[in-house]
Amino acid sequence: MSTFGLYTYFRSSATYRVRIALHLKKLAYTPHYIHLVKEGGDQHLDTYRAVNPQKLVPALVVEGLLPQQIITQSLAIMEYLDELHPSPPLLPATPLARAQVRAFALAIGCEIQPLNNLRVVGYLKNELRIDEPSRIAWHHHWMAEGFSALEQQLTQQPHTTPFCFGDTPTLADICLIPQFYNAKRLNYDTTLYPTLTKINRHCLTLDLYHGRYSVCR
Amino acid sequence: MSTFGLYTYFRSSATYRVRIALHLKKLAYTPHYIHLVKEGGDQHLDTYRAVNPQKLVPALVVEGLLPQQIITQSLAIMEYLDELHPSPPLLPATPLARAQVRAFALAIGCEIQPLNNLRVVGYLKNELRIDEPSRIAWHHHWMAEGFSALEQQLTQQPHTTPFCFGDTPTLADICLIPQFYNAKRLNYDTTLYPTLTKINRHCLTLDLYHGRYSVCR
Repeated sequence: MSTFGLYTYFRSSATYRVRIALHLKKLAYTPHYIHLVKEGGDQHLDTYRAVNPQKLVPALVVEGLLPQQIITQSLAIMEYLDELHPSPPLLPATPLARAQVRAFALAIGCEIQPLNNLRVVGYLKNELRIDEPSRIAWHHHWMAEGFSALEQQLTQQPHTTPFCFGDTPTLADICLIPQFYNAKRLNYDTTLYPTLTKINRHCLTLDLYHGRYSVCR
Repeated sequence: MSTFGLYTYFRSSATYRVRIALHLKKLAYTPHYIHLVKEGGDQHLDTYRAVNPQKLVPALVVEGLLPQQIITQSLAIMEYLDELHPSPPLLPATPLARAQVRAFALAIGCEIQPLNNLRVVGYLKNELRIDEPSRIAWHHHWMAEGFSALEQQLTQQPHTTPFCFGDTPTLADICLIPQFYNAKRLNYDTTLYPTLTKINRHCLTLDLYHGRYSVCR
Protein backbone atom coordinates (compact mmCIF):
# COMPACT_ATOMS: atom_id res chain seq x y z
CA MET A 1 0.00 0.00 0.00
CA SER A 2 1.17 3.53 -0.72
CA THR A 3 1.66 6.02 2.05
CA PHE A 4 -0.61 8.42 0.21
CA GLY A 5 -3.86 8.39 -1.68
CA LEU A 6 -4.62 11.20 -4.11
CA TYR A 7 -8.03 12.27 -5.34
CA THR A 8 -7.24 13.41 -8.83
CA TYR A 9 -8.58 14.33 -12.25
CA PHE A 10 -6.34 14.36 -15.28
CA ARG A 11 -7.32 17.84 -16.42
CA SER A 12 -7.19 19.51 -12.99
CA SER A 13 -4.18 21.82 -13.06
CA ALA A 14 -4.18 22.10 -9.25
CA THR A 15 -3.87 18.31 -9.00
CA TYR A 16 -1.24 18.27 -11.73
CA ARG A 17 0.92 20.39 -9.38
CA VAL A 18 0.68 17.75 -6.68
CA ARG A 19 1.43 14.94 -9.12
CA ILE A 20 4.62 16.77 -10.14
CA ALA A 21 5.60 17.27 -6.49
CA LEU A 22 5.02 13.60 -5.62
CA HIS A 23 7.05 12.61 -8.66
CA LEU A 24 9.93 14.95 -7.80
CA LYS A 25 10.08 13.47 -4.33
CA LYS A 26 9.72 9.91 -5.65
CA LEU A 27 6.66 9.29 -3.49
CA ALA A 28 4.24 6.62 -4.61
CA TYR A 29 0.52 7.19 -4.27
CA THR A 30 -2.74 5.43 -4.92
CA PRO A 31 -4.90 7.51 -7.30
CA HIS A 32 -8.63 7.88 -6.68
CA TYR A 33 -10.25 9.23 -9.81
CA ILE A 34 -12.82 12.00 -9.49
CA HIS A 35 -14.43 12.71 -12.84
CA LEU A 36 -15.21 16.41 -12.63
CA VAL A 37 -17.02 16.90 -15.93
CA LYS A 38 -19.24 13.86 -16.38
CA GLU A 39 -23.00 14.23 -15.85
CA GLY A 40 -23.48 15.15 -12.21
CA GLY A 41 -19.76 15.24 -11.48
CA ASP A 42 -18.08 12.91 -8.96
CA GLN A 43 -17.10 15.92 -6.86
CA HIS A 44 -20.75 16.44 -5.93
CA LEU A 45 -21.22 12.92 -4.55
CA ASP A 46 -21.87 12.74 -0.83
CA THR A 47 -19.00 10.30 -0.54
CA TYR A 48 -16.61 12.85 -2.00
CA ARG A 49 -18.01 15.77 -0.04
CA ALA A 50 -17.14 13.78 3.08
CA VAL A 51 -13.56 13.66 1.79
CA ASN A 52 -13.39 17.31 0.69
CA PRO A 53 -16.33 19.60 1.52
CA GLN A 54 -14.89 22.07 -1.00
CA LYS A 55 -15.88 19.64 -3.79
CA LEU A 56 -12.52 20.25 -5.44
CA VAL A 57 -9.48 18.18 -6.29
CA PRO A 58 -6.79 17.51 -5.25
CA ALA A 59 -7.19 15.93 -1.83
CA LEU A 60 -4.36 13.94 -0.30
CA VAL A 61 -5.06 11.02 2.00
CA VAL A 62 -2.34 10.35 4.54
CA GLU A 63 -2.77 6.60 4.94
CA GLY A 64 -2.54 4.73 8.20
CA LEU A 65 -3.82 7.38 10.61
CA LEU A 66 -7.01 7.35 12.68
CA PRO A 67 -9.15 9.33 12.31
CA GLN A 68 -8.37 9.41 8.60
CA GLN A 69 -6.32 12.48 7.67
CA ILE A 70 -7.03 14.32 4.46
CA ILE A 71 -5.26 17.44 3.26
CA THR A 72 -6.91 19.72 0.72
CA GLN A 73 -5.55 22.61 -1.34
CA SER A 74 -2.60 21.87 -3.59
CA LEU A 75 -0.23 24.40 -2.02
CA ALA A 76 -0.92 23.09 1.49
CA ILE A 77 -0.34 19.54 0.25
CA MET A 78 2.97 20.46 -1.36
CA GLU A 79 4.22 22.35 1.70
CA TYR A 80 3.31 19.26 3.74
CA LEU A 81 5.19 16.91 1.42
CA ASP A 82 8.17 19.26 1.51
CA GLU A 83 8.21 19.34 5.32
CA LEU A 84 7.79 15.57 5.57
CA HIS A 85 10.27 14.69 2.83
CA PRO A 86 12.66 17.65 2.54
CA SER A 87 14.76 16.22 -0.30
CA PRO A 88 14.74 17.46 -2.99
CA PRO A 89 13.47 20.76 -1.57
CA LEU A 90 10.61 22.58 -3.29
CA LEU A 91 11.55 25.88 -1.65
CA PRO A 92 14.88 27.72 -1.34
CA ALA A 93 16.72 27.97 1.97
CA THR A 94 16.34 31.60 3.01
CA PRO A 95 13.09 33.30 4.13
CA LEU A 96 13.25 36.01 1.48
CA ALA A 97 13.91 33.57 -1.37
CA ARG A 98 11.16 31.27 -0.06
CA ALA A 99 8.78 34.23 0.01
CA GLN A 100 9.51 35.08 -3.62
CA VAL A 101 8.81 31.50 -4.69
CA ARG A 102 5.61 31.32 -2.64
CA ALA A 103 4.41 34.67 -3.96
CA PHE A 104 4.93 33.48 -7.53
CA ALA A 105 3.10 30.21 -6.85
CA LEU A 106 0.26 32.04 -5.10
CA ALA A 107 -0.08 34.53 -7.95
CA ILE A 108 -1.03 31.51 -10.06
CA GLY A 109 -2.94 29.67 -7.36
CA CYS A 110 -4.99 32.68 -6.22
CA GLU A 111 -5.16 35.01 -9.20
CA ILE A 112 -5.29 32.88 -12.36
CA GLN A 113 -6.44 29.32 -11.75
CA PRO A 114 -9.47 29.98 -9.47
CA LEU A 115 -10.98 32.36 -12.02
CA ASN A 116 -10.65 29.89 -14.85
CA ASN A 117 -11.70 26.72 -13.14
CA LEU A 118 -14.64 24.55 -14.00
CA ARG A 119 -17.15 25.65 -11.39
CA VAL A 120 -16.59 29.35 -12.04
CA VAL A 121 -16.90 29.09 -15.79
CA GLY A 122 -19.93 26.83 -15.23
CA TYR A 123 -21.53 29.61 -13.18
CA LEU A 124 -20.83 32.12 -15.95
CA LYS A 125 -22.47 29.80 -18.46
CA ASN A 126 -25.43 28.43 -16.52
CA GLU A 127 -26.35 31.18 -14.05
CA LEU A 128 -25.24 34.30 -15.89
CA ARG A 129 -25.92 33.03 -19.43
CA ILE A 130 -22.57 34.24 -20.71
CA ASP A 131 -21.95 33.01 -24.26
CA GLU A 132 -18.89 31.03 -25.30
CA PRO A 133 -16.90 33.86 -26.95
CA SER A 134 -17.29 35.94 -23.78
CA ARG A 135 -16.30 32.99 -21.62
CA ILE A 136 -13.17 32.52 -23.72
CA ALA A 137 -12.45 36.24 -23.38
CA TRP A 138 -12.85 35.84 -19.60
CA HIS A 139 -10.30 32.99 -19.57
CA HIS A 140 -7.84 34.95 -21.68
CA HIS A 141 -8.27 38.16 -19.69
CA TRP A 142 -7.24 36.58 -16.39
CA MET A 143 -4.40 34.68 -17.99
CA ALA A 144 -3.16 37.91 -19.60
CA GLU A 145 -3.30 39.73 -16.27
CA GLY A 146 -1.57 36.88 -14.48
CA PHE A 147 1.08 35.87 -16.97
CA SER A 148 2.12 39.46 -17.69
CA ALA A 149 2.65 40.09 -13.96
CA LEU A 150 4.63 36.86 -13.58
CA GLU A 151 6.80 37.68 -16.59
CA GLN A 152 7.47 41.12 -15.17
CA GLN A 153 8.25 39.70 -11.74
CA LEU A 154 10.91 37.39 -13.18
CA THR A 155 12.52 39.99 -15.40
CA GLN A 156 12.91 42.88 -12.98
CA GLN A 157 16.45 41.55 -12.85
CA PRO A 158 17.95 39.74 -15.87
CA HIS A 159 16.66 36.17 -15.72
CA THR A 160 19.50 33.74 -16.26
CA THR A 161 18.48 30.50 -14.54
CA PRO A 162 16.81 27.44 -16.11
CA PHE A 163 13.95 27.48 -13.61
CA CYS A 164 11.88 30.36 -12.26
CA PHE A 165 14.15 30.80 -9.27
CA GLY A 166 17.52 29.14 -9.55
CA ASP A 167 18.90 25.86 -10.82
CA THR A 168 16.34 23.48 -9.35
CA PRO A 169 12.56 23.31 -9.64
CA THR A 170 10.50 24.94 -6.91
CA LEU A 171 6.82 25.46 -6.17
CA ALA A 172 6.96 28.29 -8.71
CA ASP A 173 7.78 25.97 -11.62
CA ILE A 174 5.41 23.33 -10.30
CA CYS A 175 2.56 25.85 -10.51
CA LEU A 176 3.70 27.39 -13.79
CA ILE A 177 3.78 24.23 -15.89
CA PRO A 178 0.13 23.21 -15.27
CA GLN A 179 -0.92 26.80 -15.90
CA PHE A 180 0.81 26.63 -19.29
CA TYR A 181 -1.01 23.37 -19.93
CA ASN A 182 -4.29 25.17 -19.19
CA ALA A 183 -3.31 28.06 -21.43
CA LYS A 184 -2.57 25.73 -24.33
CA ARG A 185 -5.87 23.92 -23.87
CA LEU A 186 -7.66 27.28 -24.00
CA ASN A 187 -5.72 28.49 -27.06
CA TYR A 188 -4.08 31.30 -25.18
CA ASP A 189 -0.88 32.63 -26.77
CA THR A 190 1.84 32.21 -24.16
CA THR A 191 4.64 33.27 -26.53
CA LEU A 192 3.85 36.80 -25.38
CA TYR A 193 5.87 35.88 -22.30
CA PRO A 194 9.34 34.84 -23.48
CA THR A 195 10.85 34.14 -20.06
CA LEU A 196 7.95 32.02 -18.85
CA THR A 197 7.88 30.23 -22.20
CA LYS A 198 11.60 29.47 -21.98
CA ILE A 199 11.17 28.02 -18.48
CA ASN A 200 8.15 25.97 -19.53
CA ARG A 201 10.05 24.57 -22.53
CA HIS A 202 12.98 23.65 -20.34
CA CYS A 203 10.72 21.88 -17.84
CA LEU A 204 8.98 19.95 -20.59
CA THR A 205 12.31 18.51 -21.70
CA LEU A 206 12.64 16.90 -18.29
CA ASP A 207 11.04 13.61 -17.43
CA LEU A 208 9.52 15.01 -14.29
CA TYR A 209 7.11 17.24 -16.16
CA HIS A 210 6.13 14.62 -18.72
CA GLY A 211 3.23 12.28 -18.45
CA ARG A 212 2.17 13.47 -15.05
CA TYR A 213 -1.44 13.15 -15.99
CA SER A 214 -3.46 10.46 -14.32
CA VAL A 215 -5.17 8.21 -16.80
CA CYS A 216 -8.85 8.70 -16.02
CA ARG A 217 -10.71 10.56 -18.72
CA MET B 1 12.33 53.98 10.21
CA SER B 2 10.31 50.76 10.27
CA THR B 3 11.79 47.54 9.05
CA PHE B 4 8.80 47.11 6.75
CA GLY B 5 6.67 49.15 4.45
CA LEU B 6 3.20 47.94 3.56
CA TYR B 7 1.18 48.91 0.52
CA THR B 8 -2.34 48.80 1.90
CA TYR B 9 -5.96 49.75 1.42
CA PHE B 10 -8.38 49.78 4.33
CA ARG B 11 -11.02 47.65 2.62
CA SER B 12 -8.65 45.05 1.15
CA SER B 13 -9.27 41.86 3.09
CA ALA B 14 -6.01 40.34 1.85
CA THR B 15 -4.11 43.31 3.30
CA TYR B 16 -6.16 43.12 6.50
CA ARG B 17 -4.67 39.63 7.01
CA VAL B 18 -1.15 41.03 6.87
CA ARG B 19 -2.04 43.90 9.21
CA ILE B 20 -3.27 41.34 11.76
CA ALA B 21 -0.10 39.27 11.36
CA LEU B 22 2.16 42.31 11.81
CA HIS B 23 0.16 43.30 14.88
CA LEU B 24 0.33 39.80 16.41
CA LYS B 25 4.09 39.83 15.98
CA LYS B 26 4.37 43.42 17.24
CA LEU B 27 6.14 44.50 14.08
CA ALA B 28 5.95 48.17 13.16
CA TYR B 29 5.50 49.16 9.55
CA THR B 30 5.21 52.24 7.41
CA PRO B 31 1.91 52.24 5.51
CA HIS B 32 1.76 53.31 1.87
CA TYR B 33 -1.84 53.91 0.91
CA ILE B 34 -3.10 52.60 -2.41
CA HIS B 35 -6.62 53.82 -3.06
CA LEU B 36 -8.13 50.97 -5.08
CA VAL B 37 -11.54 52.44 -5.86
CA LYS B 38 -10.94 56.07 -6.68
CA GLU B 39 -11.16 57.22 -10.30
CA GLY B 40 -8.36 55.42 -12.14
CA GLY B 41 -7.22 53.49 -9.08
CA ASP B 42 -3.76 53.92 -7.56
CA GLN B 43 -3.02 50.25 -8.33
CA HIS B 44 -2.92 51.07 -12.06
CA LEU B 45 -0.27 53.77 -11.70
CA ASP B 46 3.05 52.94 -13.35
CA THR B 47 4.75 53.67 -10.06
CA TYR B 48 2.70 50.99 -8.33
CA ARG B 49 3.01 48.49 -11.16
CA ALA B 50 6.76 48.74 -10.66
CA VAL B 51 6.16 47.72 -7.03
CA ASN B 52 3.65 44.97 -7.77
CA PRO B 53 2.99 44.04 -11.40
CA GLN B 54 -0.12 42.19 -10.19
CA LYS B 55 -1.71 45.59 -9.43
CA LEU B 56 -2.97 44.20 -6.14
CA VAL B 57 -2.42 44.93 -2.47
CA PRO B 58 -0.83 43.97 -0.16
CA ALA B 59 2.84 44.32 -1.01
CA LEU B 60 5.45 44.26 1.72
CA VAL B 61 8.66 46.23 1.38
CA VAL B 62 11.60 44.77 3.27
CA GLU B 63 13.49 47.97 4.04
CA GLY B 64 17.25 48.36 3.89
CA LEU B 65 18.09 45.87 1.12
CA LEU B 66 19.53 46.57 -2.32
CA PRO B 67 18.03 45.94 -4.77
CA GLN B 68 14.78 46.79 -3.01
CA GLN B 69 12.94 43.65 -1.94
CA ILE B 70 9.17 43.49 -2.23
CA ILE B 71 7.02 40.52 -1.33
CA THR B 72 3.52 40.17 -2.81
CA GLN B 73 0.65 37.83 -1.94
CA SER B 74 -0.63 37.96 1.62
CA LEU B 75 0.01 34.29 2.42
CA ALA B 76 3.61 34.50 1.18
CA ILE B 77 4.11 37.65 3.26
CA MET B 78 2.74 36.00 6.40
CA GLU B 79 4.85 32.86 5.97
CA TYR B 80 7.86 35.15 5.56
CA LEU B 81 7.06 37.10 8.72
CA ASP B 82 6.55 33.82 10.56
CA GLU B 83 9.92 32.46 9.44
CA LEU B 84 11.71 35.71 10.25
CA HIS B 85 9.97 36.31 13.60
CA PRO B 86 8.78 32.90 14.81
CA SER B 87 7.15 34.15 18.01
CA PRO B 88 4.21 34.02 18.39
CA PRO B 89 3.89 31.31 15.73
CA LEU B 90 1.18 31.61 13.08
CA LEU B 91 1.36 27.88 12.32
CA PRO B 92 1.32 24.82 14.59
CA ALA B 93 4.42 22.70 15.15
CA THR B 94 3.74 19.46 13.27
CA PRO B 95 3.55 19.06 9.48
CA LEU B 96 0.04 17.61 9.51
CA ALA B 97 -1.36 20.33 11.76
CA ARG B 98 0.41 22.98 9.68
CA ALA B 99 -1.13 21.50 6.55
CA GLN B 100 -4.64 21.70 8.00
CA VAL B 101 -4.15 25.36 8.89
CA ARG B 102 -2.68 26.19 5.50
CA ALA B 103 -5.47 24.34 3.69
CA PHE B 104 -8.08 26.33 5.63
CA ALA B 105 -6.33 29.62 4.89
CA LEU B 106 -5.94 28.72 1.21
CA ALA B 107 -9.60 27.73 0.94
CA ILE B 108 -10.33 31.37 1.75
CA GLY B 109 -7.38 32.81 -0.15
CA CYS B 110 -7.94 30.80 -3.34
CA GLU B 111 -11.63 29.91 -3.37
CA ILE B 112 -13.55 32.82 -1.84
CA GLN B 113 -11.64 36.09 -1.84
CA PRO B 114 -10.32 36.08 -5.44
CA LEU B 115 -13.82 35.59 -6.82
CA ASN B 116 -15.25 38.47 -4.85
CA ASN B 117 -12.51 41.00 -5.24
CA LEU B 118 -12.77 44.36 -6.86
CA ARG B 119 -11.27 43.64 -10.25
CA VAL B 120 -13.36 40.52 -10.82
CA VAL B 121 -16.63 42.14 -9.88
CA GLY B 122 -15.57 45.13 -11.97
CA TYR B 123 -15.16 42.80 -14.97
CA LEU B 124 -18.63 41.32 -14.35
CA LYS B 125 -20.08 44.82 -14.28
CA ASN B 126 -18.19 46.58 -17.04
CA GLU B 127 -17.30 43.85 -19.53
CA LEU B 128 -20.12 41.37 -19.05
CA ARG B 129 -22.83 43.91 -18.15
CA ILE B 130 -24.02 41.89 -15.18
CA ASP B 131 -26.56 43.85 -13.15
CA GLU B 132 -26.23 44.57 -9.44
CA PRO B 133 -28.63 41.88 -8.11
CA SER B 134 -26.76 39.24 -10.10
CA ARG B 135 -23.41 40.57 -8.89
CA ILE B 136 -24.64 40.32 -5.31
CA ALA B 137 -25.85 36.77 -6.01
CA TRP B 138 -22.35 36.01 -7.36
CA HIS B 139 -20.74 37.31 -4.17
CA HIS B 140 -23.13 35.32 -2.00
CA HIS B 141 -22.78 32.15 -4.05
CA TRP B 142 -19.02 31.91 -3.60
CA MET B 143 -19.24 32.83 0.05
CA ALA B 144 -21.88 30.12 0.57
CA GLU B 145 -19.71 27.54 -1.18
CA GLY B 146 -16.65 28.58 0.77
CA PHE B 147 -18.08 29.13 4.23
CA SER B 148 -20.10 25.91 4.18
CA ALA B 149 -16.97 23.91 3.31
CA LEU B 150 -14.97 25.64 6.05
CA GLU B 151 -17.70 25.04 8.62
CA GLN B 152 -17.83 21.38 7.63
CA GLN B 153 -14.04 21.09 7.76
CA LEU B 154 -13.96 22.37 11.34
CA THR B 155 -16.83 20.24 12.59
CA GLN B 156 -15.85 16.84 11.22
CA GLN B 157 -14.69 16.39 14.80
CA PRO B 158 -16.40 18.27 17.66
CA HIS B 159 -14.91 21.78 17.66
CA THR B 160 -13.95 22.80 21.19
CA THR B 161 -11.16 25.36 20.84
CA PRO B 162 -11.48 29.16 20.84
CA PHE B 163 -9.67 29.52 17.52
CA CYS B 164 -9.99 27.54 14.30
CA PHE B 165 -7.20 25.19 15.28
CA GLY B 166 -6.27 25.24 18.95
CA ASP B 167 -5.80 27.83 21.64
CA THR B 168 -3.84 30.42 19.72
CA PRO B 169 -4.53 32.28 16.49
CA THR B 170 -3.08 30.88 13.28
CA LEU B 171 -3.15 31.78 9.60
CA ALA B 172 -6.62 30.19 9.54
CA ASP B 173 -8.11 32.77 11.93
CA ILE B 174 -6.13 35.55 10.30
CA CYS B 175 -7.80 34.74 6.98
CA LEU B 176 -11.23 34.05 8.46
CA ILE B 177 -11.74 37.38 10.22
CA PRO B 178 -11.25 39.59 7.13
CA GLN B 179 -13.50 37.23 5.17
CA PHE B 180 -16.22 37.76 7.79
CA TYR B 181 -15.65 41.50 7.47
CA ASN B 182 -16.21 41.16 3.71
CA ALA B 183 -19.32 39.06 4.29
CA LYS B 184 -20.81 41.68 6.61
CA ARG B 185 -20.08 44.44 4.14
CA LEU B 186 -21.88 42.46 1.45
CA ASN B 187 -24.88 41.64 3.70
CA TYR B 188 -24.16 37.94 3.65
CA ASP B 189 -25.69 35.97 6.53
CA THR B 190 -22.81 34.28 8.31
CA THR B 191 -25.00 32.99 11.16
CA LEU B 192 -25.59 29.99 8.92
CA TYR B 193 -22.15 28.85 10.10
CA PRO B 194 -22.28 28.64 13.90
CA THR B 195 -18.72 27.43 14.47
CA LEU B 196 -17.14 30.04 12.22
CA THR B 197 -19.37 32.70 13.78
CA LYS B 198 -18.32 31.67 17.28
CA ILE B 199 -14.64 31.89 16.34
CA ASN B 200 -15.12 35.27 14.65
CA ARG B 201 -16.94 36.63 17.72
CA HIS B 202 -14.17 35.41 19.98
CA CYS B 203 -11.51 37.01 17.82
CA LEU B 204 -13.37 40.31 17.75
CA THR B 205 -13.27 40.46 21.55
CA LEU B 206 -9.49 40.55 21.34
CA ASP B 207 -7.56 43.69 20.73
CA LEU B 208 -5.56 42.12 17.96
CA TYR B 209 -8.53 41.90 15.63
CA HIS B 210 -9.85 45.37 16.37
CA GLY B 211 -8.97 48.48 14.52
CA ARG B 212 -6.62 46.78 12.15
CA TYR B 213 -7.79 48.94 9.29
CA SER B 214 -5.44 51.47 7.90
CA VAL B 215 -6.90 54.94 7.86
CA CYS B 216 -6.89 55.85 4.18
CA ARG B 217 -10.36 56.03 2.69
